[in-house]
Amino acid sequence: MLQQRLLSRNSLQAELNRAQFRANRVLAVNVLSAPGSGKTALLEQMARLWPMGPLAVIVGDLATERDAQRLQAAGARALQICTGDLCHLDAALVSAAWGELGSDDLRLLMIENVGNLVCPAAFDLGEQLRIAILSVTEGEDKPLKYPALFKGADAVVLNKIDLAKAADFDRQLAIANLAAVAPQARLFETSARLQQGLDGLISWLIDELEH
Amino acid sequence: MLQQRLLSRNSLQAELNRAQFRANRVLAVNVLSAPGSGKTALLEQMARLWPMGPLAVIVGDLATERDAQRLQAAGARALQICTGDLCHLDAALVSAAWGELGSDDLRLLMIENVGNLVCPAAFDLGEQLRIAILSVTEGEDKPLKYPALFKGADAVVLNKIDLAKAADFDRQLAIANLAAVAPQARLFETSARLQQGLDGLISWLIDELEH
Repeated sequence: MLQQRLLSRNSLQAELNRAQFRANRVLAVNVLSAPGSGKTALLEQMARLWPMGPLAVIVGDLATERDAQRLQAAGARALQICTGDLCHLDAALVSAAWGELGSDDLRLLMIENVGNLVCPAAFDLGEQLRIAILSVTEGEDKPLKYPALFKGADAVVLNKIDLAKAADFDRQLAIANLAAVAPQARLFETSARLQQGLDGLISWLIDELEH
Repeated sequence: MLQQRLLSRNSLQAELNRAQFRANRVLAVNVLSAPGSGKTALLEQMARLWPMGPLAVIVGDLATERDAQRLQAAGARALQICTGDLCHLDAALVSAAWGELGSDDLRLLMIENVGNLVCPAAFDLGEQLRIAILSVTEGEDKPLKYPALFKGADAVVLNKIDLAKAADFDRQLAIANLAAVAPQARLFETSARLQQGLDGLISWLIDELEH
């Protein structure tokens, strides 16, 4: 019941965030994945390649400022939220961070959620799009085992494809599992480390911004 | 406050579980990691190698029975708990599962928690030992970013060492980060896929059982 009340308070704040992002012509994207899937590496490359002003990033982690520092070094306008022992970001945290970060030259806000395939799925942050990242080293079955997160994704990024062979990754099986759980999601295949496959993802985000 | 009450009810059940495990001369081990770190693959190999009767495994996942099926095929006495949207196992779930699974020929119970580096750390299951698994593809910084989980571990298993080179894994840095956050933890380095390094882990568990 407390969980219900917290969720409904969160939904209200999320709608406020969404209205504010729309009014400012900002596209906000909630990025969800397991720990170590390469979220920050992917956002570093995006910060280098993004053509419409600086990339804004809000980063959630239990502890350390290291991801925001990495992203700033890559040219992003990045702000770290240390959640302590909170296992997900919520709409109020994002609102406060955007209050500090927001400015007129920002068009795309990537919100890097806490690395967790469970809890973040239940919390709307006021984003317009959700991206789930799955790295090939995590195994083909993750969409089946964490269905809520993948069902809610507008796009899935299959990352670390440079490790597919070393990890004996079965690409067809992973894609079939994704199609079964998340038929609505676009698929991008990337290697953040080798800077491969990011152009498709960036083109899609530009299209979404201009619609 | 609800979280506090839930935790204290859980602690009580955890103490009951621990007393029952002790009375039955069973060593119970809580296995925690991110999704895709290779928990199930490691337990499959352990089930094949464990020398003191069948290996008992309780497996927690949001959805699917596949891990229990994989473990049974490897010779384990395995039981799946599907948690739905619950992001961690708790002591009551483990007690119920052990009620179904427990028998006189079982000495070692491995409890494979939900893949999550945050929430499971706060819930005592009544185990005598905790093992955290970190795969090399997740990056060297995870102990710093998820400190609570690693601080509470009696041992850390660095898994997927066969992928270390392909993933540019910095072993010295990972070990330094582990030493900073979790100096109490023993370290084992394994490749579940190539069946490497499990002998040390198994010897340690036998020692703990016999003490």
